[in-house]
Amino acid sequence: MSNSNTTYADWIAVDWGTTHLRAWAMVGDTVKAEAFSEDGMATLTRDGFEPALLRLVEPWLDTAPMPIVACGMVGARQGWFEAPYVAVPTKPCDLSVVSAPTTDTRLNLMIVPGLKQAEHADVMRGEETQIAGFLTSNKDFDGVLCLPGTHAKWVRISAEEVVSFQTCMTGEMFQLLAEKSVLRHSIAAQGDAPEAFVEAVTDIISRPEKLSQRLFGLRGENVLNGLDPVTARARLSGYLIGAELAATKPYWLGQDVALAGSPALVAAYAAALKTQGVEARSYDAAPLTRAGLARVYASLTESV
Amino acid sequence: MSNSNTTYADWIAVDWGTTHLRAWAMVGDTVKAEAFSEDGMATLTRDGFEPALLRLVEPWLDTAPMPIVACGMVGARQGWFEAPYVAVPTKPCDLSVVSAPTTDTRLNLMIVPGLKQAEHADVMRGEETQIAGFLTSNKDFDGVLCLPGTHAKWVRISAEEVVSFQTCMTGEMFQLLAEKSVLRHSIAAQGDAPEAFVEAVTDIISRPEKLSQRLFGLRGENVLNGLDPVTARARLSGYLIGAELAATKPYWLGQDVALAGSPALVAAYAAALKTQGVEARSYDAAPLTRAGLARVYASLTESV
Repeated sequence: MSNSNTTYADWIAVDWGTTHLRAWAMVGDTVKAEAFSEDGMATLTRDGFEPALLRLVEPWLDTAPMPIVACGMVGARQGWFEAPYVAVPTKPCDLSVVSAPTTDTRLNLMIVPGLKQAEHADVMRGEETQIAGFLTSNKDFDGVLCLPGTHAKWVRISAEEVVSFQTCMTGEMFQLLAEKSVLRHSIAAQGDAPEAFVEAVTDIISRPEKLSQRLFGLRGENVLNGLDPVTARARLSGYLIGAELAATKPYWLGQDVALAGSPALVAAYAAALKTQGVEARSYDAAPLTRAGLARVYASLTESV
Repeated sequence: MSNSNTTYADWIAVDWGTTHLRAWAMVGDTVKAEAFSEDGMATLTRDGFEPALLRLVEPWLDTAPMPIVACGMVGARQGWFEAPYVAVPTKPCDLSVVSAPTTDTRLNLMIVPGLKQAEHADVMRGEETQIAGFLTSNKDFDGVLCLPGTHAKWVRISAEEVVSFQTCMTGEMFQLLAEKSVLRHSIAAQGDAPEAFVEAVTDIISRPEKLSQRLFGLRGENVLNGLDPVTARARLSGYLIGAELAATKPYWLGQDVALAGSPALVAAYAAALKTQGVEARSYDAAPLTRAGLARVYASLTESV
């Protein structure tokens, strides 16, 4: 699926997660071409990474080594080459990339390391680059950046530093419960019910101890009272995001909060936070990753 | 796998759940033979139920119709024949069975209905028969019976009546998180760590709002600090059972509590309740189902 209309690039930006691979041919911070595949880390053996990358970027290569800056699970222990975690507090815009060995001499692969936190042990890979991208246009941000997704991250930022962070596996829980548990019979595959969502959020934030009961209640309400599966889906989402807000209250309470992720999910989190009187600014995550990779690449060329 | 040493039975007891089928050839409440298969409801189409039953019980049949009393998902809408739920409050020992049509005239199949609760909508199928079995030897019980499992039930009982009940899908959540989520990399397939379990229970009962954070913490602790996967398994179990106890506090607080289930799970719930000063009596669930079916059969013959 590569787009080979453009033959020249200064460097290549790569976002390589568990389930996806995205590459952009770049000149400075301008995108000249892009290519995507589903060769995520989870589908590859160690010697499958280089061919997977070449399938996307070969049209952009010349004979000289091409700088490639990659972030995400590609740098995990089970990825292409481990880029050890950097401990917080740290500045995501100043992370030192790790050079990874390649067979093809046209590839000069550099991997952005993830972040780790010793107390309240936690890790991230990929989000540090989104944070760097966020900071390029929000240099003076002092507050909390929330990155919702499969594993949502709440990140305290001050003076361009990640001070601390916390992960909640809300997206993964939602998917497991909606698709793999007994609730799958009662939950629609898609659809919104904003009022039901907000009610569920406020219900769980005020009574977080009821989560375990509320979940099976969706099944009971569906079987006995014909609860609409779209409403059930909204409630499940509201219960789980509400539980996340209950767990992360010390992060968002009284803070300047920004959200970055897929627009639909960001809108849901914004609505959930609004029930608690928090007006969060919203960002689309997709351009942030690329901006973060461009920032890392720029710092490489500055320091040369 | 049927045992055909015994050729004569008065009646046949059947426990037919989502994933299993168990049958006993009975004389009164004495077991003469038993047979098991994995032909649970989930694996069968509607016309697969009768052949699945015959594969187990045919050696016990004569030419005359054989009374067969069955409980569990066999009576669900997606089972062999629907036995509509009976609303609580009701006496599980006095439930009227529903006769199901059969092709083979040697089968006189009667299905025990499940229970439903309109307010705090909830349903059960199969547990009502365990409760009837429990009451045969605990006639004057006034308190709460907890039946831990895939979908744990908390049941308020007074004067031989189920007054109300509540389901928590703790067992299913544990299985999904331990086997299907990112935590699977950090959780042992088996093993106990009683101290870690109890600590996790008390942690979540006192801070139920932290559940969402604690779950991913198991991953972080494993990756960064080498948390032992057996300890991680015990903590995950403790967090989820702790969340269940937080949700069901109005059920067990200040009540006489009994537990019935698989011995290992009952021991875990007993230890969890003990952290809250509740000394629960423990029962093995396996004989209770049969005792409940025998009780239903006896009431049929009494009323004839």
